[in-house]
Amino acid sequence: MEIRKLETCFTPALFEPGLHTGSTVVIIDILRATSSICTAFEHGAESIIPVAGVEEARAYKKRGFLVAAERDGIILDFADLGNSPFNFSRENIQGKTIVYSTTNGTGIIRMASSAGCIIIGSFLNITSLCDWLITRTENVLLFCAGWKNRFNLEDTICAGAIAERLLNSSRYSTICDSTIAAVDLWSVAKKDLRGYIDKAAHRNRLKKNGLDDCIDFCLTADYTRKIPFIKNDILVSDIL
Amino acid sequence: MEIRKLETCFTPALFEPGLHTGSTVVIIDILRATSSICTAFEHGAESIIPVAGVEEARAYKKRGFLVAAERDGIILDFADLGNSPFNFSRENIQGKTIVYSTTNGTGIIRMASSAGCIIIGSFLNITSLCDWLITRTENVLLFCAGWKNRFNLEDTICAGAIAERLLNSSRYSTICDSTIAAVDLWSVAKKDLRGYIDKAAHRNRLKKNGLDDCIDFCLTADYTRKIPFIKNDILVSDIL
Repeated sequence: MEIRKLETCFTPALFEPGLHTGSTVVIIDILRATSSICTAFEHGAESIIPVAGVEEARAYKKRGFLVAAERDGIILDFADLGNSPFNFSRENIQGKTIVYSTTNGTGIIRMASSAGCIIIGSFLNITSLCDWLITRTENVLLFCAGWKNRFNLEDTICAGAIAERLLNSSRYSTICDSTIAAVDLWSVAKKDLRGYIDKAAHRNRLKKNGLDDCIDFCLTADYTRKIPFIKNDILVSDIL
Repeated sequence: MEIRKLETCFTPALFEPGLHTGSTVVIIDILRATSSICTAFEHGAESIIPVAGVEEARAYKKRGFLVAAERDGIILDFADLGNSPFNFSRENIQGKTIVYSTTNGTGIIRMASSAGCIIIGSFLNITSLCDWLITRTENVLLFCAGWKNRFNLEDTICAGAIAERLLNSSRYSTICDSTIAAVDLWSVAKKDLRGYIDKAAHRNRLKKNGLDDCIDFCLTADYTRKIPFIKNDILVSDIL
């Protein structure tokens, strides 16, 4: 089997769409969009409509949709749910379609629309995700949401954890410096994952808003086997 | 003494000029622009005129200047010198003004022009550079040239080595994820610096062009005490 190319993009500001046409793009925004999406499908959500703008989310709300929307970690006044995975309980969302707008995550799903396939990655589905990628023939881009077009540690470390497994499978290789860096940062972080995230600027921001309650959950491996993916611009439950 | 803020920018595509007005910006492009600039001043160059474009370099050549110019590691046909620090021997450049154009390095010197002060960093002057920064009161941005607007390992590792010393001095602190990552990558790389750089994509490119002869030299700490800096748009020998 031919060796596939593995690359990593640290933040939307570094994304080069023309290079990834036909690739599988893994969106990574672990605090909290992609962790929440994995949780929602594990808890039985029917589908998720990603929207980038607040006004678009508000318009869906007026049409009667269940809306999850936050900016900078704060739930918007018209929304039913925020962006914490704990909001996506079975009771709240089972069988429902959710309109979802977040600071970073939903925007980059749209940016990556020229990819062959867009799937959702987090620690919560890491084993299932990696097992599936290892069976595929497309090149892979690990696309980190970052924070406001900047590099962030938590998404990079998750990309490194995924990259380590893919490279160890011998089905992928990389000459991408960002991927090498992500794997090395993961090798440092995994010795004390929670302690490492505590160093990160993002957590300082979350803490300031009293929204750091879900970090341990978002760092949990294999809460679900679901691999959410984009089909006709909508997120659906499982590519398997 | 007030604690100064330390930040790192991985590549020009991530540079936010408005955030660094008044800061000291350290330009890092170790393979090979900033290593060559440090070498040139150690060997007695009078000054260096950084130019971003090939045509600008050619125009200076017609006016009789000594010109160093490369693109993608290849010396341009009209130039006197390439971009290897070995080209900047005392014999070639002592007492002379050099016009210098490179793929990345000189372009970002211009981008950073709103900074309070722009200085040149590399392993070759790391101790002198850090000792000086520790005496200063301005915030510091470590500005990596990267490779064609992408993240690269070699510049990031040098930024990490500088950041480690500044943070250890207790005169600087950081909440910048890129700085934390750079320090952690340096902590991995320093155990076998040459082996680490051998992993990097940039070296593959250099090797392909047969231009990897200067890597060991560029990883040498403290070849010089000079801290080249920008004065009236020209690089001069030493800020001390």
